[in-house]
Amino acid sequence: MTVGVRKENITIVLNKPKYPGNIGSVARCAKNMGVEKVMVVGSPPADRENILRMATHGAADVVDGVRCFDDLGEALSGFNYVAGTTSRVGRARRPNLHPRELAAELIDLSQNNEVALLFGPEDFGLTNDEIKYCHSLVTIPTAEAMKSINLSHAVMILCYEIFVAGRAEREVFTPKLATLRELEGMYGQIQGLLTRVGFISPENTDHRMMNIRRFLSRVKLYSREVRVVRGVCRQLDWYCGRNKKT
Amino acid sequence: MTVGVRKENITIVLNKPKYPGNIGSVARCAKNMGVEKVMVVGSPPADRENILRMATHGAADVVDGVRCFDDLGEALSGFNYVAGTTSRVGRARRPNLHPRELAAELIDLSQNNEVALLFGPEDFGLTNDEIKYCHSLVTIPTAEAMKSINLSHAVMILCYEIFVAGRAEREVFTPKLATLRELEGMYGQIQGLLTRVGFISPENTDHRMMNIRRFLSRVKLYSREVRVVRGVCRQLDWYCGRNKKT
Repeated sequence: MTVGVRKENITIVLNKPKYPGNIGSVARCAKNMGVEKVMVVGSPPADRENILRMATHGAADVVDGVRCFDDLGEALSGFNYVAGTTSRVGRARRPNLHPRELAAELIDLSQNNEVALLFGPEDFGLTNDEIKYCHSLVTIPTAEAMKSINLSHAVMILCYEIFVAGRAEREVFTPKLATLRELEGMYGQIQGLLTRVGFISPENTDHRMMNIRRFLSRVKLYSREVRVVRGVCRQLDWYCGRNKKT
Repeated sequence: MTVGVRKENITIVLNKPKYPGNIGSVARCAKNMGVEKVMVVGSPPADRENILRMATHGAADVVDGVRCFDDLGEALSGFNYVAGTTSRVGRARRPNLHPRELAAELIDLSQNNEVALLFGPEDFGLTNDEIKYCHSLVTIPTAEAMKSINLSHAVMILCYEIFVAGRAEREVFTPKLATLRELEGMYGQIQGLLTRVGFISPENTDHRMMNIRRFLSRVKLYSREVRVVRGVCRQLDWYCGRNKKT
């Protein structure tokens, strides 16, 4: 027996897609590969006719089930694991996963975690500010001569790798990760504390917080651990407050 | 060092595509994965504007280089190996390859053979009559709920698998296979001979020839072997003619 990715725990999250047709194409190819949940962040998709045309009759139900959000953080708040897709490598960014590596990782992770596959807009992809939500980044390899992949084709490659990934069955401990909501609460608390103690100033907030996020997201924190970190922060905060008074 | 598929020897062949936009999408995703040759069989693509829009500026050169043919046999005649894509499995058809198996096979084959990846029209795919040209058939795995894959997404999956396929370098004998032109000449000669001797009658020509084709295409004949087969046929034909006369 083999175990595959638990596809009902996978959601495609499209951040501010520009072309409605792409939403339909994404719905179709996600459903081809057994992924039936799609979220859209940004202005609600107009031109429903075009969306349905690209989805074809077969994926109309996926289109009907699309959930829309104004804010990316809000859209992601219920997920335990977020993988972002980016063509840009390097700079302040982490080493990126190959789609096949991501799929292999998701076999265990998806068993009891809600996973978001996050895609940026067609023209510029995810910004550094959006990437902060991601536990991992994945880059689809391309030829040098043509690096820009159509949004729905990028979705197809990730969903295809997820569909075909599998490993021999064995006993595995698949931990329940903290949700984005828990993580963002923790980051907010850390930021407040570190600002208070002067480690973070308004000029370097993003830079310092990005370093902290990068470290903590690589760790893949459990809910329990988030509570521990928050407890520590609360304690420190209380202590700083007390010392200030004296 | 690793050896990959030699992508300059790979050509995407679209048999009678219905939607011009798909030709552009195919050009783009093929180029994403380093495949820059596309052929179109059927009426020459109209609506060049739509094709170029889907190809984007980056793949305009692939669109400019598209070669058009009236006839599928003519389009394929210069190839040494043809892999056809089909979603239908079974019946008189052979066991199909997974895209990853095809890519692995092409690592060696593509080193000195011209390879065609053949795709049928969007609605019905390749017919049995068109499949006769194929050395192998490949089926992209899908979820049961939605088996119909968009043409350009199917191309993307095959090209992606070809792009990422590789193996450790080692000495390999990569034979030069017979071209389709050589094979079709041979099949014509076999058919003539077998009709003459009554093995084939007008009522069962297709069925009998399909069985012969299926067997010989699995063998992957070299040019040299095609010449041997044709020599045997010629000799038999001559002998039959002589015996008839006496």
